[in-house]
Amino acid sequence: MEEKQRKKIILTALNEAHKAFDLDEVPVGAVIFHSQTGEIIAKAHNLVEKKKNPLQHAEMQVLEKAIKKINDKFLGGYSIFITLEPCVMCAGAIAWARLDALYYGASDPKTGAIEQGAKVFTHSQTHHKLKIEKWSNLECGALMTQFFKRKRK
Amino acid sequence: MEEKQRKKIILTALNEAHKAFDLDEVPVGAVIFHSQTGEIIAKAHNLVEKKKNPLQHAEMQVLEKAIKKINDKFLGGYSIFITLEPCVMCAGAIAWARLDALYYGASDPKTGAIEQGAKVFTHSQTHHKLKIEKWSNLECGALMTQFFKRKRK
Repeated sequence: MEEKQRKKIILTALNEAHKAFDLDEVPVGAVIFHSQTGEIIAKAHNLVEKKKNPLQHAEMQVLEKAIKKINDKFLGGYSIFITLEPCVMCAGAIAWARLDALYYGASDPKTGAIEQGAKVFTHSQTHHKLKIEKWSNLECGALMTQFFKRKRK
Repeated sequence: MEEKQRKKIILTALNEAHKAFDLDEVPVGAVIFHSQTGEIIAKAHNLVEKKKNPLQHAEMQVLEKAIKKINDKFLGGYSIFITLEPCVMCAGAIAWARLDALYYGASDPKTGAIEQGAKVFTHSQTHHKLKIEKWSNLECGALMTQFFKRKRK
């Protein structure tokens, strides 16, 4: 994939995160794209508050959209970029969907489940293994900090 | 809760698991009920194959149904019974929904995430803590064994 396409993926996810921020939702955005070409097939942002549903994380929504679009149980050939390290639920969902790779912009010490906590992909009970890489992006984390600062006011 | 009500909950979930079995789905059933009275407010079974969607586990569906019914982001006051130990995704979803308690009928060494593997509720990144108890039921596990025996034929 070209660097230009990678940037487009990150910016699209960040734009989704900003949409969440503007709705006073925890600002997380996610994008699913073709692993080779980088073509984006689905994007979503966190809508837990608006939908009054604690399962409506950006990742769960983008997975649902991509599964419907591809009309297949498995998303082999596709990858996900999330602005933030996923939680245990979303990491599990990503494993079940059998994506090629998981990329994220910022670590999440509070609810992350990749580098810390449950470390979902380190157990034999998580059958699907995929490429995991941090596409470090300062704005992804800064948006979170800004959000929680505003909340504490 | 009376023993009679507890039995009703287990049998309702087992009936859901049997529905999945008859559809050639991995036979798992789940029920959400009022923690005090035991009144059942939602039930579901695994529909991954029928819906061509790897996220449609019994637990995810029963949570969605209960959240819609209660019309609240959190399911405090309610508990879940599942015929099988939940996977990482479902354990995470149960944590986000803030149920009072999680009960299950059989351990799942292959994809379980409570007693083994990710041990979701043992990490500080899983903020919500709840009562976890095994309501051991031989049929819950036997149905799984029977299903995978049939699959291997």
